[in-house]
Amino acid sequence: MRRTPEPQDAGGTVAHARPAALDAHWRAANYLAVGQIYLMSNPLLTEPLRPEHIKPRLLGHWGTSPGLNLVHTHLNRVIIERGLDALCVWGPGHGGPAVLANSWLEGSYTQTYPDVTRDAQGMAKLFRQFSFPGGVPSHVAPETPGSIHEGGELGYSLAHAYGAAFDNPDLLVACVIGDGEAETGPLAASWHSTKFLDPVHDGAVLPILHLNGYKIANPTVLARIPEAELDALLKGYGHEPLHVTGDDPRKIHHTMAKAMDQALDRIAAIQQTARTGGARGRARWPVIVLRTPKGWTGPATVDGMPVEGTWRSHQVPLAGVRENPEHLAQLEGWLRSYRPQELFDAHGRPSPEVLDCVPEGHRRLGANPHTNGGLLTRQLPAVPLERFAVPVDKPGTTLHEPTRVLGALLARIMADTAGRRDFRVVGPDETASNRLGALFEVTGKAWQAGIVGTDEHLAGDGRVMEVLSEHLCQGWLEGYTLTGRHGLFSSYEAFVHIVDSMVNQHIKWLKTARSLPWRAPVPSLNYLLTSHVWRQDNNGFSHQDPGFVDHVLNKSPDVVRVYLPPDANTLLSVAEHVLHSRDYVNVVVAGKQPCFDWLSLDEARVHCARGAGVWEWAGTDDGTHDPDVVLACAGDVPTQEVLAAAGLLRHHLPELAVRVVNVVDMTRLLPHQEHPHGMADFEYDALFTPDRPVIFAYHGYPWLVHRLAYRRTGHPHLHVRGYKEAGTTTTPFDMVVRNDLDRYRLVMDVVDRVPGLAVRAAQVRQTMADARARHHSWIRAHGTDLPEIADWTWTG
Amino acid sequence: MRRTPEPQDAGGTVAHARPAALDAHWRAANYLAVGQIYLMSNPLLTEPLRPEHIKPRLLGHWGTSPGLNLVHTHLNRVIIERGLDALCVWGPGHGGPAVLANSWLEGSYTQTYPDVTRDAQGMAKLFRQFSFPGGVPSHVAPETPGSIHEGGELGYSLAHAYGAAFDNPDLLVACVIGDGEAETGPLAASWHSTKFLDPVHDGAVLPILHLNGYKIANPTVLARIPEAELDALLKGYGHEPLHVTGDDPRKIHHTMAKAMDQALDRIAAIQQTARTGGARGRARWPVIVLRTPKGWTGPATVDGMPVEGTWRSHQVPLAGVRENPEHLAQLEGWLRSYRPQELFDAHGRPSPEVLDCVPEGHRRLGANPHTNGGLLTRQLPAVPLERFAVPVDKPGTTLHEPTRVLGALLARIMADTAGRRDFRVVGPDETASNRLGALFEVTGKAWQAGIVGTDEHLAGDGRVMEVLSEHLCQGWLEGYTLTGRHGLFSSYEAFVHIVDSMVNQHIKWLKTARSLPWRAPVPSLNYLLTSHVWRQDNNGFSHQDPGFVDHVLNKSPDVVRVYLPPDANTLLSVAEHVLHSRDYVNVVVAGKQPCFDWLSLDEARVHCARGAGVWEWAGTDDGTHDPDVVLACAGDVPTQEVLAAAGLLRHHLPELAVRVVNVVDMTRLLPHQEHPHGMADFEYDALFTPDRPVIFAYHGYPWLVHRLAYRRTGHPHLHVRGYKEAGTTTTPFDMVVRNDLDRYRLVMDVVDRVPGLAVRAAQVRQTMADARARHHSWIRAHGTDLPEIADWTWTG
Repeated sequence: MRRTPEPQDAGGTVAHARPAALDAHWRAANYLAVGQIYLMSNPLLTEPLRPEHIKPRLLGHWGTSPGLNLVHTHLNRVIIERGLDALCVWGPGHGGPAVLANSWLEGSYTQTYPDVTRDAQGMAKLFRQFSFPGGVPSHVAPETPGSIHEGGELGYSLAHAYGAAFDNPDLLVACVIGDGEAETGPLAASWHSTKFLDPVHDGAVLPILHLNGYKIANPTVLARIPEAELDALLKGYGHEPLHVTGDDPRKIHHTMAKAMDQALDRIAAIQQTARTGGARGRARWPVIVLRTPKGWTGPATVDGMPVEGTWRSHQVPLAGVRENPEHLAQLEGWLRSYRPQELFDAHGRPSPEVLDCVPEGHRRLGANPHTNGGLLTRQLPAVPLERFAVPVDKPGTTLHEPTRVLGALLARIMADTAGRRDFRVVGPDETASNRLGALFEVTGKAWQAGIVGTDEHLAGDGRVMEVLSEHLCQGWLEGYTLTGRHGLFSSYEAFVHIVDSMVNQHIKWLKTARSLPWRAPVPSLNYLLTSHVWRQDNNGFSHQDPGFVDHVLNKSPDVVRVYLPPDANTLLSVAEHVLHSRDYVNVVVAGKQPCFDWLSLDEARVHCARGAGVWEWAGTDDGTHDPDVVLACAGDVPTQEVLAAAGLLRHHLPELAVRVVNVVDMTRLLPHQEHPHGMADFEYDALFTPDRPVIFAYHGYPWLVHRLAYRRTGHPHLHVRGYKEAGTTTTPFDMVVRNDLDRYRLVMDVVDRVPGLAVRAAQVRQTMADARARHHSWIRAHGTDLPEIADWTWTG
Repeated sequence: MRRTPEPQDAGGTVAHARPAALDAHWRAANYLAVGQIYLMSNPLLTEPLRPEHIKPRLLGHWGTSPGLNLVHTHLNRVIIERGLDALCVWGPGHGGPAVLANSWLEGSYTQTYPDVTRDAQGMAKLFRQFSFPGGVPSHVAPETPGSIHEGGELGYSLAHAYGAAFDNPDLLVACVIGDGEAETGPLAASWHSTKFLDPVHDGAVLPILHLNGYKIANPTVLARIPEAELDALLKGYGHEPLHVTGDDPRKIHHTMAKAMDQALDRIAAIQQTARTGGARGRARWPVIVLRTPKGWTGPATVDGMPVEGTWRSHQVPLAGVRENPEHLAQLEGWLRSYRPQELFDAHGRPSPEVLDCVPEGHRRLGANPHTNGGLLTRQLPAVPLERFAVPVDKPGTTLHEPTRVLGALLARIMADTAGRRDFRVVGPDETASNRLGALFEVTGKAWQAGIVGTDEHLAGDGRVMEVLSEHLCQGWLEGYTLTGRHGLFSSYEAFVHIVDSMVNQHIKWLKTARSLPWRAPVPSLNYLLTSHVWRQDNNGFSHQDPGFVDHVLNKSPDVVRVYLPPDANTLLSVAEHVLHSRDYVNVVVAGKQPCFDWLSLDEARVHCARGAGVWEWAGTDDGTHDPDVVLACAGDVPTQEVLAAAGLLRHHLPELAVRVVNVVDMTRLLPHQEHPHGMADFEYDALFTPDRPVIFAYHGYPWLVHRLAYRRTGHPHLHVRGYKEAGTTTTPFDMVVRNDLDRYRLVMDVVDRVPGLAVRAAQVRQTMADARARHHSWIRAHGTDLPEIADWTWTG
């Protein structure tokens, strides 16, 4: 963060010198916020307010708006005064009217949406469009200039702020945290981000905890504990609190300016010390506690009930304005209390005094390029996959741990971005467990807390982020990618559900952002889901859930991509693709346990580009006619079982024409009208046939495949095996047996479904059933898999 | 919580008097934990350890076990000494070997599983079954006596502990929190439960924060901040910390006993003051910070690397025991270091000294009836629904807010359980917003923090729980129901995804618990999802997600139930059913906005009992033949649109035989082999026909209906409309138009799909398309729905 010389003096002087201008800006923003909630026309109150000026549906959140306006006004001041490169994450993002008001005042709104001009006509549009059909959302959203944070669901503002600050050493990220949001788990955990932010290579986060005392209908916890207890809490999080408390508009600007200056001086001092090598121990970063009334400057009472300073001001304080003349008069008085005639000229343009504190160009909070991060994105360096691929002379005879192979590729990318610092890998304490340990040869794990002699790989400037909170991993990476940088989140498959709701919001963000021409595409958010459902030998049932794929596939097909590479080289190919993509949420499911290598790198590239294809070498289908049966598979364990089943069929029923199809990209199964990757019907029929039995071994819940393929001609012949919640702590093969996904069961399925088989087939079926019985008795006795399973290799 | 007289003296004396016995118990538990991880046979080391005594697969978590054993030993002591009724939630539940060891020592294991006797033979079984195929999980799980908390996913221990303590004034709930778990968001938020626990009517929670310093591969945040900072944090959470730090087994029992006594004295004093009316302000409850080495008493180094006191002891410290004679010798030395010959007699029975601190009967932590809560469950009082039902003379002509009608029923149940205190309603600050405000006429909102004059309905003893954390709501209610009490979680539909992963674990728990004959059924966990996807007029896209139903339907059909009552009376009927049910997760989706009343209470009861049925009065089908088309619906808004479409068809195409089917219970659509509520094919065909077009208007993602019904004969004729992520801030009718679920589109679907319609049908289709166009232009101009939509009522 850059600053002008002698900031203490400058800060002090200016804060004292211009309170009237700051107040004018704040009043203007408040006026515009109220206008958006209520007015259809007559924006400047040039005539007395009448019912027809009022919107037919009153929607919006007033309560938090005056506080947000105050923060924005004072951020404006310090940005100019200190030449800051700053953005702000607005946690109480339902205060959309406030952030929109400020963007309009500073001109970034008109720059983004030229039809909403900075004059009376534009003001009328600004008011009318707010929370109006076809207009703009009532919350801070992708449509809002200067935002990287959707204001709907609460809990993620501070994690987003940290994500934006990482590897942006010259950036200040202010973050307003509502006291409602502060009760959520993700926010409560986010405070500990202080142990992961490097004052040398990262920017600064300035949290502003806004205690206006109430959420929708209740007081908030943090506003109702004694101040000493709150201070203890914030110090316990690693912060130094600065308090701004007030309900007198005449005094607040002074207190607020002083606290801002103290906070920024402290930040500058921390950074200077750290960057000149003088730092001893972890920094205690400032936090501002801003305690002002909810709905401040709004109606004190309505219909005899207290409103200002209570939860009743949360949304629309005066609800009956169109019908109730008293409410209408109260609204007019409220609007005029801001003295709009002093704030806007006759054409509705903000007065010079109002604009006195407003920065210019990219310094405006609504126009900082970091908030439209795709503008700053650099393509990741190209890395030759050949260096990392495993040699495959013959399929199914060698084993590799796919994620370990991927780890080497990630390490190379990490090394190649060492100077640029625009790539991070996050995960909940599982990077090594997920066999991505090669990363630690080129970077450390970010860590600012204490270090002891036996620790390994901890480093202040590390770019692997490990914390036992999926919420933090997700929030940090969202903030990091929305500000234009690259990353990967590696997680145990089952526990990624912890962030289901966060990923919902991120997908919604990307979907909307893609429709806005002014938003540049940002790097995709990439998941590596490993330690998956089939290999929880140690952890069992609680760690078995492959449903994240189902969850994301409910979301916008424009954004969502799902890949199940069956081996090491296909994982490399998929990883290369997703890391270079933009504006997607990519879910990659891959195992960390030794897994057969099926395809060479060249074959893997072709196969992954197709997304699904026939493995001719694995089947007995001569390609001239449709086969008798299709064995399809998606995922590493199902692929192994299907290949083993194909081997058994080749041995026991050699006359049967078996086609083996492997699916890497699950969305290929969707109709092409439903997803950009979907196959046309002719492609699907060519691959799966329109009328032959298809036995599909799928990694996750079997009905997902039906949900994707139900419109296909051949759907009545589709029979899917997958995980059906039959889990426990057991061996790998016992898991597939319990879920009827094992090779023997698949062969039995073939016998059951292919018509007109030789009489001998019944005998083959019995042989398979016997093998399953042998498995059951063996495992009870030995606790391990049958030797013929453990030693199996492909011999086709 | 009951206590003996003069506890200070008694505690002091006993702690000093019996350290040797406490140590013997601790050593025995440690021995048994190691034995479970490693031994197949030779449990008492009666012969020198040989490779064949070792398990073929070494699975389990040693690192946390000695700490858990220490806590268990000392809880045993105070239970006896103070006559406590206590349970313990084991947050580091992957330390399954420790909890199992203690249960076996105290005899509760043998009581639960008589074949695992408390002798050498039983010890061998205990060892062998651990993390062995067909055996027991490596984590604390439903199979573990005395547990209400699965030890797999981390983050929920403290919320579970509070849930167990609410309304159990005589209960002490100890809760061990691992320092890994403490990094999660849900746990971080749970500390603030101190503002919701009533010292008069609730029991006590004693958190024991176990800082063993490491998670899987990293140090933990809380173990690496200065002690003063940690103390500030805990004080900021509202606690008084007591520290127990040590690595010398000879000294630890004294320090631990002293801290336990201090904590329990403090708890007793808080309760006594509060219960005798002497309390002033919120209590500062004690928390014990236990700092001991990870993997304590295990191998100090292995292969030259430090293990004890580092992350390397997390799982299996000696990995090569079967192959590596040095490891084998080290293991034998480790096991013998506990001096098993002093701890067990020749028959493998624990010595009297080991058992000296062990309580008896229901006082044992593995046998406390609260941990098998169904044993204590009382049926909720029966409430006559007639008092709350809305009168329905003619369907579709009157409007009620369904959740407000439900609120009156819930208030009555709340009133009727005022003395018993075994019913709670939880929600994230939305009880009033969700129109359940009638509850506040009979109880308050639990609140122990500051109160000011303008507050409403806050009360120390309130049984509505509001906190802006879905994680806390879920965790509290899980703890409350697993200890045998009743409750309801009301949530905005979209944001219940925040607890996706928690509900996964709870469903897994219930599924397993149902298979254990000794676990008594507990009250179901009931969700009311309201403020749903179709009525986010104010909040828009970020608040629109109906996918929770999809999420839970991936889970065990034995446990999961999903209901979409279409009006007020059906909601009452469904609510009565779910509140009296056991061992389910019930998801009820219902609107809070005014909604047409379709069925009288009697009709509603019949309809809900069937789960799906024909609404004869709404169709034009004479019932003698299959109709020309079936209009099906599930959910309040789709039902309204289908009824409106049926009305339009009756008017425009009166000759068409239309059948209207409403589905309340979504699992009725599944085959009966797949779900206990599933219809047999003949039932499904009778309702939906095997071959007529079915236009199905569904509340959520349309493909869910296909996933449920894809096996049905009529599936090729099934056409589903639903929410497809086309959302924004707009009017109710615009939402259904955007998603093609509106009445006009449904009529167009009928025209498109029913073969052989009159030529006039094309004209009807055009009329519908014109109506949609009229909607689009009207809403752009007025921002409200067309008058004919706003004023529509059923006129059939």
